[in-house]
Amino acid sequence: VAKLVGNAVIGQSGGPTCVINQSLVGVIEAAKKSKEIKKLLGARHAIKGMLKEDFIDLFKEPAGVLEKVAQTPSSALGSVRMKPGREDCLKVFDVLRKNDVRYFFYIGGNDSAETTFIVSQTAREANYDLRCFHIPKTIDNDLKVTDHCPGFGSAARFVASAFIGDNLDNRSLPGVKINIVMGRHAGFLTAASILARRYDDDGPHLVYVPEAVFDDDKFIADVKAVNAKFGRCIIAASEGIHYADGKTVAEKMAEGAERDSHGNVQLSGSGALGDYLAELVKRGYQGQKIRVRADTFGYLQRSFPGFYSETDAREARKVGRDAVKFATKGDADGSVAIKRVSNKPYKVETFVTPLATVAKETSGLPAKYLAPSGNDIDKSFRDYVLPLVGKLPVAERLKGW
Amino acid sequence: VAKLVGNAVIGQSGGPTCVINQSLVGVIEAAKKSKEIKKLLGARHAIKGMLKEDFIDLFKEPAGVLEKVAQTPSSALGSVRMKPGREDCLKVFDVLRKNDVRYFFYIGGNDSAETTFIVSQTAREANYDLRCFHIPKTIDNDLKVTDHCPGFGSAARFVASAFIGDNLDNRSLPGVKINIVMGRHAGFLTAASILARRYDDDGPHLVYVPEAVFDDDKFIADVKAVNAKFGRCIIAASEGIHYADGKTVAEKMAEGAERDSHGNVQLSGSGALGDYLAELVKRGYQGQKIRVRADTFGYLQRSFPGFYSETDAREARKVGRDAVKFATKGDADGSVAIKRVSNKPYKVETFVTPLATVAKETSGLPAKYLAPSGNDIDKSFRDYVLPLVGKLPVAERLKGW
Repeated sequence: VAKLVGNAVIGQSGGPTCVINQSLVGVIEAAKKSKEIKKLLGARHAIKGMLKEDFIDLFKEPAGVLEKVAQTPSSALGSVRMKPGREDCLKVFDVLRKNDVRYFFYIGGNDSAETTFIVSQTAREANYDLRCFHIPKTIDNDLKVTDHCPGFGSAARFVASAFIGDNLDNRSLPGVKINIVMGRHAGFLTAASILARRYDDDGPHLVYVPEAVFDDDKFIADVKAVNAKFGRCIIAASEGIHYADGKTVAEKMAEGAERDSHGNVQLSGSGALGDYLAELVKRGYQGQKIRVRADTFGYLQRSFPGFYSETDAREARKVGRDAVKFATKGDADGSVAIKRVSNKPYKVETFVTPLATVAKETSGLPAKYLAPSGNDIDKSFRDYVLPLVGKLPVAERLKGW
Repeated sequence: VAKLVGNAVIGQSGGPTCVINQSLVGVIEAAKKSKEIKKLLGARHAIKGMLKEDFIDLFKEPAGVLEKVAQTPSSALGSVRMKPGREDCLKVFDVLRKNDVRYFFYIGGNDSAETTFIVSQTAREANYDLRCFHIPKTIDNDLKVTDHCPGFGSAARFVASAFIGDNLDNRSLPGVKINIVMGRHAGFLTAASILARRYDDDGPHLVYVPEAVFDDDKFIADVKAVNAKFGRCIIAASEGIHYADGKTVAEKMAEGAERDSHGNVQLSGSGALGDYLAELVKRGYQGQKIRVRADTFGYLQRSFPGFYSETDAREARKVGRDAVKFATKGDADGSVAIKRVSNKPYKVETFVTPLATVAKETSGLPAKYLAPSGNDIDKSFRDYVLPLVGKLPVAERLKGW
């Protein structure tokens, strides 16, 4: 492999996570040590900063600051939700060439993988040597190929912990409680709520994910059945739950809902879905007195500080470092993926997968994790998710109750 | 003082907190060591359990279990939102007498203090020797007399941390973000959001509490001014914000809102207020493209596990222990209150205040903490709240940005 020597650029794109800066710092550390990368330019707000040559010299950042930044949630370089078109890519490309950039690193989800793919193709067409690497990040855990995505474990730890606390809250003051969890198409994060179960009567008692079909009447019947059994009911529902016709509950509710530049409807940052489900429950009890509450966990899931999964943080750092290693030592563009070598003890390896394999399409919860009832997650999912989440907070009942 | 020897009963009432079980365990530990208390009965769901003689023998709980229960959020004995009437009190009283109960401990907020007060009066009228103690607990921090309330510090730590994360999230993906914080009449918890500020442009940029008057037009103008200055805006608003006529925004919005047994309107467990404020902002920009999101932190604030304030946990344990000490060594009923002896270094003492001084009425943020603008909290509030919250999670910016 002929050595490619020059500068590098890095951007962080899409929704933040609690460990996305671990990956950034991983790249900085490895790039600093490499002989191939002379200078590492951090693009503010990702592709937007690349278009404007809005760069930070990341080799100038003191190690002490970087260690703290790594532990800080949300994209330290700023993020963007922008899908560059052909023209943008050509403009970016001019900037890269002008700055003697030979390495392009992009941290993000599948949309970011697609951007990386487009930049890679543009460089190839121009016959310009540019090594492009996508570094996986998404709390949705919906990237193809990889066993799981950095960022997911910490968000799952937040969600599982939130349900541990809410289960205790609900046991103390019984009622019907609905919690809306992030997840447009993939139910991984919502499914992580089952980690809160320890005793038979622990919630969540019902779990609705986008991989199953949602039905208003079935939902009401489910809640009434659980409530009749336990005198209370905790529900985990993904923001992207949908009806048999494919329309999301949120879409049917909200006429003319906002769409982002990737064509996605706004699902987060509103309590409307939870409030709608609460209304359904009240309707089901037809005027009988029933305590129903709905919380939407919202952005806390992706940026709550000081509560990350240690495993997730370590792996996020590793995929950053390994991206530099794969880019400088190999001769192909790609995305860093994780392979679970063994589960007990938990052990992973990283490898390179072609950009096209992770761009555009995403994957959801495998069918084996969906309970046939359509309102629950199979307990085998625990084995998948627990190593990513790590040790959960203490929660103990009195022996007498 | 003539020694009062017999059994004791304890209940946990009202909304849970992250450290309410520290107080429970404090009572159990001290009661076990006392010579006056023979048996400690834990009433399931507080007054409801007392009415039904639904008791747990708390001296039978192993020390190892108790230490874990202490660290567990939400009321381990179960809670209730029920204001006992005269008839209920007489019934409870019969149960206490039958079980040779001489000590009555009730952990909760001002409604619980009132219940304790009524039980105390009933016993006095019946000429029955019963020592009644209220043990303070509320995330609202709205009890009179005491410097602050156990439960508040941990909830404030959650809120401040949430704003630290959300500020970083919003800096990364700019827009207008509204966060609704618990607090019906008292703005302490919402005010704790200012701990998230470190740099001049850090949010929350606007803070609305029930102690100030809210106005829709003023709010829109405030948001536009901040957004013009920083290109983003984070807002902290209490669920109980109200208009000049005294009506809460939530009340005006929701016709026929639910009321609990204390006559309070349901404000939590719904995203409606946040969504309404988001609508106001959009209205203010009259069709211009603006990214507005609203999150309602909800029950996470009071029961998220593994994230309590160490100071809060220690003090919650202490007020439990001291309640037993004051009850068994003194000759008056009362509520345990905290006095801040010094702030640097932070040091507190406990003392007994008569039940009547904390029952019924509550107190809000002192006027000195309210910014004259009506949309902010004076920075002197930091000195009051920081010792209660303790060390906040790491959050660092890159030097270059």
